[in-house]
Amino acid sequence: MLSNIRTTRIEWGDCDPAGIIFYPRYFALFDASTTMLVERATGMKKIEYLKAYDLAGHPVVETRARFRIPTRFGDEIAIETKVVSCGRSSFRLEHRLTLAGALAVEGSETRVWVGRDPDDPARMLSRPIPAEVVAALTKALSPSS
Amino acid sequence: MLSNIRTTRIEWGDCDPAGIIFYPRYFALFDASTTMLVERATGMKKIEYLKAYDLAGHPVVETRARFRIPTRFGDEIAIETKVVSCGRSSFRLEHRLTLAGALAVEGSETRVWVGRDPDDPARMLSRPIPAEVVAALTKALSPSS
Amino acid sequence: MLSNIRTTRIEWGDCDPAGIIFYPRYFALFDASTTMLVERATGMKKIEYLKAYDLAGHPVVETRARFRIPTRFGDEIAIETKVVSCGRSSFRLEHRLTLAGALAVEGSETRVWVGRDPDDPARMLSRPIPAEVVAALTKALSPSS
Amino acid sequence: MLSNIRTTRIEWGDCDPAGIIFYPRYFALFDASTTMLVERATGMKKIEYLKAYDLAGHPVVETRARFRIPTRFGDEIAIETKVVSCGRSSFRLEHRLTLAGALAVEGSETRVWVGRDPDDPARMLSRPIPAEVVAALTKALSPSS
Repeated sequence: MLSNIRTTRIEWGDCDPAGIIFYPRYFALFDASTTMLVERATGMKKIEYLKAYDLAGHPVVETRARFRIPTRFGDEIAIETKVVSCGRSSFRLEHRLTLAGALAVEGSETRVWVGRDPDDPARMLSRPIPAEVVAALTKALSPSS
Repeated sequence: MLSNIRTTRIEWGDCDPAGIIFYPRYFALFDASTTMLVERATGMKKIEYLKAYDLAGHPVVETRARFRIPTRFGDEIAIETKVVSCGRSSFRLEHRLTLAGALAVEGSETRVWVGRDPDDPARMLSRPIPAEVVAALTKALSPSS
Repeated sequence: MLSNIRTTRIEWGDCDPAGIIFYPRYFALFDASTTMLVERATGMKKIEYLKAYDLAGHPVVETRARFRIPTRFGDEIAIETKVVSCGRSSFRLEHRLTLAGALAVEGSETRVWVGRDPDDPARMLSRPIPAEVVAALTKALSPSS
Repeated sequence: MLSNIRTTRIEWGDCDPAGIIFYPRYFALFDASTTMLVERATGMKKIEYLKAYDLAGHPVVETRARFRIPTRFGDEIAIETKVVSCGRSSFRLEHRLTLAGALAVEGSETRVWVGRDPDDPARMLSRPIPAEVVAALTKALSPSS
């Protein structure tokens, strides 16, 4: 399955009066990580693959997270994101956020590939994930990679 | 168990390019709802009960949410929050967010009552929830209430 | 000129490790206040007036703010917003945010009424503000009102 | 005067239903840029220099910004931040945010160096900026640097 790792920094404005990250911010970090993963799977930036696939997005329908170690402003963190399953119109991801190598947050989410209802553009409908995207999201990694 | 209901409005700045709420915002809404519930349980505003109980906060250690119906800017929503269990130093809550009476989001979270380690103020330690707060969070509601 | 006043509460998640509001949040509050004012001027919710006028939005092109008194989580604040001028395709607003009657923040902004370029929907073009909207935004208030 | 340049990416969650960045996010980006500049001036991370100088922070007392070109999710932007003046307890900065070399946003801000009132920790008082920090913020750059 496709996976991705990136590093970023927790900023002052991400933190609350207890001096630690305000936990909704973790979901914003995970969302950006998922975008980067789908960008790799499609070979396009999000603004391009939305257009190419006539997509409204891939909204989260279910998520959970466990917060083990608090992070603070200035902390350099790493986020590893991987696809764990991929169905006809939905896919599931897991995120592991580490601080100096220690697991700080575990998250998972299910997303749905959605387009707009042609009869009512405000309405979103699930769509089959294109075969080449499924293939890229789920490809077995060779031992050498 | 103590419960609370409040109404609020989804704003333009809460929404993403798909025109629906950016889902991390739901957790910020839930966090404010939990604060309001603890304020009712303690009879104090958060800034006051943190001081009164020498508390750093009540951070979330685990959360999950299911997003059933998207909400959009201008939507008036209601959030019902209730305590579902309360232990020695942690408590669990559930949130139900409705749009025009329909269940849009279900969330749950476990929080820990934490103070600061006197030997290292950057470190947070779980603390027993004061008996009167446990009593207020868990009081059986009489049939007439 | 049209004006509006609303009250809201600063939440824990709006605040930073200094225990005061993270100042970008004020602009999000001002943005919501402006939306409410334009909703009154048009008699429609934003999602409706964007559609009715084939509008992409009314983005800010210039803003400034002065922060006089810090606000903290739990503070109940009032925001008074008024139109100060209205041109062909832009309008200017002022916000006064008060805490217990004291002026905490003064802000101002210029916004442009924009639609999408039919030849390139990613591009936004300024549009004349409809006459009835100009009239509503700038109407002289009668002494009795 | 000290200056700094950094690059970052606008994310989906930074953008609003018009598909462009929600402008309050620019101030969060500027805030992080200022932190990085003060970290360079002090040779410490913010969490360290707040402690070393017994500082509550360096909150913004006045800001303004001009938004010239909209930015969108996926855009790689550069932010150049420089000190423009430094007084006894306040300093002023300018930010230039560029997209593919074109000036997208200009911002400026005045910040005050504040500590906590020993008699009332909730109250913040301006403090003289330490001489070595003033020197680092305002040092003339040699032609070769």
